[in-house]
Amino acid sequence: MGAKPPLSPLAPAGFPELPEIAGVSFATTAAGVRYKDRTDVMLASLAPGTAVAGVFTRSATRSAAVLDCQAKIGGAPEGGAAILVNSGNANAFTGRRGAESVSAVTGAVAETLGLPAMRVFSSSTGVIGEPLPHDRITACLDDLKSALSPHAIETAAHAIMTTDTFPKGSGTTITIDDQTVHIAGIAKGSGMIAPDMATMLVYIFTDAAIEQDILQDMVSALNRTTFNCITVDSDTSTSDTLLVAATGASGIRVTETSVGFMEGLRRVMLDLAHQVVRDGEGATKFVEVSVTGAASDAEAHLHAKSIANSPLIKTAVAGEDPNWGRVVMAVGKSGARADRDRLSIWFGDLEVAREGFVSPDYDESKAAAYMKNEEIVIHVDLGLGGGTARVWTCDLTHGYIDINADYRS
Amino acid sequence: MGAKPPLSPLAPAGFPELPEIAGVSFATTAAGVRYKDRTDVMLASLAPGTAVAGVFTRSATRSAAVLDCQAKIGGAPEGGAAILVNSGNANAFTGRRGAESVSAVTGAVAETLGLPAMRVFSSSTGVIGEPLPHDRITACLDDLKSALSPHAIETAAHAIMTTDTFPKGSGTTITIDDQTVHIAGIAKGSGMIAPDMATMLVYIFTDAAIEQDILQDMVSALNRTTFNCITVDSDTSTSDTLLVAATGASGIRVTETSVGFMEGLRRVMLDLAHQVVRDGEGATKFVEVSVTGAASDAEAHLHAKSIANSPLIKTAVAGEDPNWGRVVMAVGKSGARADRDRLSIWFGDLEVAREGFVSPDYDESKAAAYMKNEEIVIHVDLGLGGGTARVWTCDLTHGYIDINADYRS
Repeated sequence: MGAKPPLSPLAPAGFPELPEIAGVSFATTAAGVRYKDRTDVMLASLAPGTAVAGVFTRSATRSAAVLDCQAKIGGAPEGGAAILVNSGNANAFTGRRGAESVSAVTGAVAETLGLPAMRVFSSSTGVIGEPLPHDRITACLDDLKSALSPHAIETAAHAIMTTDTFPKGSGTTITIDDQTVHIAGIAKGSGMIAPDMATMLVYIFTDAAIEQDILQDMVSALNRTTFNCITVDSDTSTSDTLLVAATGASGIRVTETSVGFMEGLRRVMLDLAHQVVRDGEGATKFVEVSVTGAASDAEAHLHAKSIANSPLIKTAVAGEDPNWGRVVMAVGKSGARADRDRLSIWFGDLEVAREGFVSPDYDESKAAAYMKNEEIVIHVDLGLGGGTARVWTCDLTHGYIDINADYRS
Repeated sequence: MGAKPPLSPLAPAGFPELPEIAGVSFATTAAGVRYKDRTDVMLASLAPGTAVAGVFTRSATRSAAVLDCQAKIGGAPEGGAAILVNSGNANAFTGRRGAESVSAVTGAVAETLGLPAMRVFSSSTGVIGEPLPHDRITACLDDLKSALSPHAIETAAHAIMTTDTFPKGSGTTITIDDQTVHIAGIAKGSGMIAPDMATMLVYIFTDAAIEQDILQDMVSALNRTTFNCITVDSDTSTSDTLLVAATGASGIRVTETSVGFMEGLRRVMLDLAHQVVRDGEGATKFVEVSVTGAASDAEAHLHAKSIANSPLIKTAVAGEDPNWGRVVMAVGKSGARADRDRLSIWFGDLEVAREGFVSPDYDESKAAAYMKNEEIVIHVDLGLGGGTARVWTCDLTHGYIDINADYRS
């Protein structure tokens, strides 16, 4: 990693106040996995009975830790559980030794905390193709155990960072039948993107009591409209991992009909997803792509992703150019149905094209002024049906080239 | 368009000597469609009996001229034919007026040259969303007719340029049964890419005599391994057009079994395709992605396109970084089958990864030295089957951002 990149101009004012989650405690340490003089390992200890749900990268070259997590998700929530994450080394494309490292780390955590290994989840993020020096991690476990504290979620958010320019956290408190449950989560990532320095990891905790299968269904469903709707550069990490742990320590039971809880969890997931985009490599603009009138929701999503991933649109946004012709192009190439002569486009509230032709009221100077905003909304209506989708992305700037064309060091 | 971009460092030494094609004559003029003081219209007149084959963008928002060409391809080659191309205005996303402009231009060409309108093909390239001032083109047709000359293919290559930094031409002479036929073609494009300034147009001419349906099958087949195997930025134009015209004026008949002719046509198509990549916006490296050992040729192509379109790989090439981890990532996200532990990767002749792990002989300094070359070969073997593919692309540099983040003017 070269010089520390400057703070993203889209960063929030600071790390938010997060509610404490009964049944979860955190510890972090500087194990020297790759970085010097910074924390690079975090341990989260979870109370007995905690249900853990997960969503993972669909990459065919996913990492050993991801494969291990996938094998463990859905097991019975007997006893406690733990999540261990290291930054600095992704333990990806490390062959048989990768699986051995995961086994060594999760086995040692299980022994230290008195848990079955099946209940220890791990993630690794950082450089790929180099064996993980897992001894440096296991050597710290006794110290981590002693340091566990319910107040340390912000330091945990720092320990999992790689090229991130700010730590990412989000939380909420929900009232169910006059009783409160809490949700707090952290994330890292500057995109869906680089397997060597910028994979996306997300850990969300709640003290609600939820059956594992109900939690899994909720998380899988919400993932579709949150983390699956962001893109920085269309590249997909080998390590993307989202884990949601429900300790049940509040004693409040959440069922599949708990709309309030699901909405709270959705807000936290969406906030963390947006923060990942706001830390997109080189980003200077936050862009919402909203598609309506598509033949189906799935086709709306294809159009929205095609627009959000187009390098020509992303560079036009960087250049504050209301280049709606490139939006037409991206709709055309998406693979989903479109009728050129029914297509309408807005930048913010400004209608730029209506039914296949430049809008009669279009005023280029107004559109150019709108593009100077830090947050841009591109809205496309296909005029075909009721399908809708929203996707979030950032612009493509010289900063992205600087960060990614730098020789690894 | 802003200041003229500097000549691509990957440009050939000069425009090649092209064989004259009996039965084809060219004329160009400065009609002032958008640009001042440069040629922006070219007319190619084709002898009676010329067979015309074509391949077009599959964009759902394709332009009026593309739709018109598609409707005309395959008609009986009675009488002569003509191709008229203007640069400066793409006549795309111009609604009903777009079709009216195409009809006005092709109708006027037909009248001027005494042809049926069904035999006049047209293309437009340049800014989109603005009505084509077709009167400026039709006003020049008499002058164009008078200027028609068999020697003007190089000026034709100039007239169709937009953001291209060099005119693109390629030709060959083939001997069939001791007699010679000739092929010569021109192209424009700085990618598959922008609908406003850089769509790809290709026109190839031969004096061979070929039935239209045989020519169409040849062109469609060859397109799959030539123009469909290049990518600059993964964006797809609304106007991409390839027309191949066989005048038959040599009197030499070519059939579906003419391996020599097909190979000659393939060379010309591949050369023009490579020249488009070499003029890719901001390009400083020419990259061949070669995939072997995939489960099928189609899956090999998916892997190769995923690698060639990855912004992280393209920036790594720009930065001369042998970042093979990003190749693993791109294989993983391609959607085609891969087994991490059978994957091998080479940069040029240097094996960097073997069967899912960094190669025992890997020498980072040698790989870094290799990446300094102007032409880079990335070779991936999946270890699964016999599927192969080759795709060509360029790197992603600050130059691309400069060109595309510039406000249109």
